[in-house]
Amino acid sequence: MAGNKTLNDLFVETLKDIYYAEKQILRALPRMAKKAESEELRAAFERHREETEVQIERLDRVFEIVGKAPRGKTCDAIIGIIDESKEVMEDFAESDALDAGLLAAAQAVEHYEISRYGTLRTWAKQLGMNDAVKLLEQTLAEEKKTDELLSQLAEAAVNRKAA
Amino acid sequence: MAGNKTLNDLFVETLKDIYYAEKQILRALPRMAKKAESEELRAAFERHREETEVQIERLDRVFEIVGKAPRGKTCDAIIGIIDESKEVMEDFAESDALDAGLLAAAQAVEHYEISRYGTLRTWAKQLGMNDAVKLLEQTLAEEKKTDELLSQLAEAAVNRKAA
Repeated sequence: MAGNKTLNDLFVETLKDIYYAEKQILRALPRMAKKAESEELRAAFERHREETEVQIERLDRVFEIVGKAPRGKTCDAIIGIIDESKEVMEDFAESDALDAGLLAAAQAVEHYEISRYGTLRTWAKQLGMNDAVKLLEQTLAEEKKTDELLSQLAEAAVNRKAA
Repeated sequence: MAGNKTLNDLFVETLKDIYYAEKQILRALPRMAKKAESEELRAAFERHREETEVQIERLDRVFEIVGKAPRGKTCDAIIGIIDESKEVMEDFAESDALDAGLLAAAQAVEHYEISRYGTLRTWAKQLGMNDAVKLLEQTLAEEKKTDELLSQLAEAAVNRKAA
């Protein structure tokens, strides 16, 4: 019964959601790297793909902490976000604005992850799972850093234009 | 042809995307407010609904600046994010974790908006549309503030638990 559900259940559900999301992101990043025009953006996507592998391993450890087998659960949000990125890649293929579109798509992905890891970190704290808090905070810090790097790349395009 | 598309086209497409998203959010917030257990959370959702109306008016003005009629375009990302919030509302109805789930869903929405407004602001700068930059920055600041407020509400639950 729904009424009997606890924060621990919500934590596990959300863990499955981001686990699924990370696996989708792992598949999407090489496609995005391949499309990127600028060397810097391609490198950023490739680096983030490697980072994502480590982030999935951390999630495996959080599943262990809650005593559940690591398993994803369809995450409509990330499917929608990635579908939009595919649309931009098609609609702006070979246009000058393609990299800007890829950057925007990647930042939407990062922000989804930032919101999920922030939430999971807060709940892990509330549930007294200190080891999980540390793992989730590590990833949260990485996602924020990646988002900042992408913002810098987007701003650099503005400055190049102005120069 | 895709190859002829410009950053201005991408800006307009993304403007339509967030316009659609804001209208969906405007419809979702009263549902979420109605479900919220805590008075503070309900008030936060109601306040954000009013804020969203003003944000849509700002988007109308940005459409005017680019010389286009304000029109939305299906945004798969926000549909996915809102679908997830509906799922949480159903799965955790009448449970103690419902407000935590609503908070998490709202923060996923905020982060999508933060990424989109951040992107649009940067592109408006690049396109030399200073009035649009100002309007988009106002909304961006509001979204960040709302996200912080939601984080505070989530943290307050942790502290209540610890007390």
